Amino acid sequence: MSQSNRTVVVAKRASGIPGAENFRLVDRERPVPPPGGAVVRIRYAAVDPAMRGWLSAEPNYFTVPDGEVMRSHAVGEVIECDSAHWRTGDWVYGFFGWQEFYAATEDQFIWKIDRDVAPAPVWLGPLGLNGITAWLGFRHFARPKAGETVLVSTAAGGVGSVVGQLAKAGDVRAVGLTSGSDKVALAIEEFGYEKAIDYKAAGDLTSAIAFACPQGIDIYYDNVGGEIADAAFANLRRGGRIIQCGTASIESWIPTPVGPRRERDMLVKRLSWNGFVALDHSDLFPTALADLTALYRQAKLKSREEVLEGLDAAPTAVQRLYSGQNHGRLCIAL
Amino acid sequence: MSQSNRTVVVAKRASGIPGAENFRLVDRERPVPPPGGAVVRIRYAAVDPAMRGWLSAEPNYFTVPDGEVMRSHAVGEVIECDSAHWRTGDWVYGFFGWQEFYAATEDQFIWKIDRDVAPAPVWLGPLGLNGITAWLGFRHFARPKAGETVLVSTAAGGVGSVVGQLAKAGDVRAVGLTSGSDKVALAIEEFGYEKAIDYKAAGDLTSAIAFACPQGIDIYYDNVGGEIADAAFANLRRGGRIIQCGTASIESWIPTPVGPRRERDMLVKRLSWNGFVALDHSDLFPTALADLTALYRQAKLKSREEVLEGLDAAPTAVQRLYSGQNHGRLCIAL
Repeated sequence: MSQSNRTVVVAKRASGIPGAENFRLVDRERPVPPPGGAVVRIRYAAVDPAMRGWLSAEPNYFTVPDGEVMRSHAVGEVIECDSAHWRTGDWVYGFFGWQEFYAATEDQFIWKIDRDVAPAPVWLGPLGLNGITAWLGFRHFARPKAGETVLVSTAAGGVGSVVGQLAKAGDVRAVGLTSGSDKVALAIEEFGYEKAIDYKAAGDLTSAIAFACPQGIDIYYDNVGGEIADAAFANLRRGGRIIQCGTASIESWIPTPVGPRRERDMLVKRLSWNGFVALDHSDLFPTALADLTALYRQAKLKSREEVLEGLDAAPTAVQRLYSGQNHGRLCIAL
Repeated sequence: MSQSNRTVVVAKRASGIPGAENFRLVDRERPVPPPGGAVVRIRYAAVDPAMRGWLSAEPNYFTVPDGEVMRSHAVGEVIECDSAHWRTGDWVYGFFGWQEFYAATEDQFIWKIDRDVAPAPVWLGPLGLNGITAWLGFRHFARPKAGETVLVSTAAGGVGSVVGQLAKAGDVRAVGLTSGSDKVALAIEEFGYEKAIDYKAAGDLTSAIAFACPQGIDIYYDNVGGEIADAAFANLRRGGRIIQCGTASIESWIPTPVGPRRERDMLVKRLSWNGFVALDHSDLFPTALADLTALYRQAKLKSREEVLEGLDAAPTAVQRLYSGQNHGRLCIAL
């Protein structure tokens, strides 16, 4: 067996969306299990919008320093083991990164996945951190009531595709924002949306949202920020909740971009706006995963993956995501 | 007894801060008790920052139409009565308006006040809707923990003066923003603030807040919005809460003024931002009032009123408030 570990490391900070120049493929030594730990052979690694923030020179909730293996969540198989908690042949989920092998210690963020419930890539999607993120923002923070309306930006993306289905399962009317007629169709046919708006083709987005949501919006699940969020804000009802899950539409926050002030709407409409990062809420992961798995078993949680082959495809994958070319959850098979 | 009722009615909408031209003094017929109701002789009527919004032509959570008696909360004495709930000689609190007499029906927002606990004007201040507003925003929405830091704009105002004292009573460190050395002293000596910043004299307010709050801010109790809020946002800690209680620093919202976008801070700092209007939460008023009354009895809730004499002073009183000339809770004796 080869003693090398192919990895994608961060070469330099990205001022916008990271691309080929921000990464470098490097062969490292293959790890051995740490005491009480295991070595995982990674099989699928995720590509996420959050990666732009991890590579940014700007302050972020998480950063991958130059020279380190690119962080990503991933699934793989335990191939060497010195642990009482898992065994060789187990499939596990964790932040293993863009590389072939990962040495996990006992206390690391990792859980077993069950390929009898769903194929491995699904555990990077609706049954992985994307699904859990959707669940936390929608179920835990937004506290939806049956009959309400939720508007979701990036409705066909990894998180948005799950929010739509959670909404439908909870009798909440979901309206999605996405780009391109393919994704509009996907949002409606697969991801639980009653309506979907192609925001690039909509003209005046505020009016388009008002037309799709004649009673206004109770919940805005925001993955993008910026002008799309402005159009959503204008349609919020009294008592509306905004969930800030991402800011993908804004390439740089230095200097801070300007937009319409929110103070008056916050007050007059009695709004509630919450930002969250899923990893802060690991105490809720088992509840979320039990809920998501039950929905998946009932065929109420569909998954659409686009799989890129090999680590060579990784450095340009984040650009593919931001260009909107991907269909469903983007990941890398290796 | 005179059969007339002197009133201040709204003459026309105000585009900025309402002044003499927006009101008209009108003698109306003195009311008689409605069936099951009472007539109140008003003794003290409030002057509030919210009045600008009530007279604005712009959408607001509440509007006083042209030709109607100006809304205000007030205290007065029941002088005629056809009710099982109160008696002649009771002192009561309610939205009686800028006028001498008010005809209250059985179901109106009104409660008895106890002048043995505190003099009548105090029931327009820390034991009235201002105190309840402070309590709701701070205790109910911000959920402060001992040892945290709260920053309050308009620290010497009707609401801010109570937030400082609630903070001190709950072992929360309060830092206030106000204008003028008199009010800085008042905030510190009377209203529970550990530090107070004269925001007009501070130069770079972001740095001044950082200097006063070296650990950052856990709670920003915002009565003003605008650039003062921008300086506060920059100093919020992870998990910070923003309470939107007013937007007094911004004269007009048409067109919507611009400011730095909040989306990234909301996400990265995991912020929670809530707007509220006290009257939505009348179910919590008894709890709030019991708490505030207990603090007042323990001399932990001080009150400072500035009393203007007569309804003639009412039309220019809102301008006095916004100019920052008032010291403590502004009200009108009549």
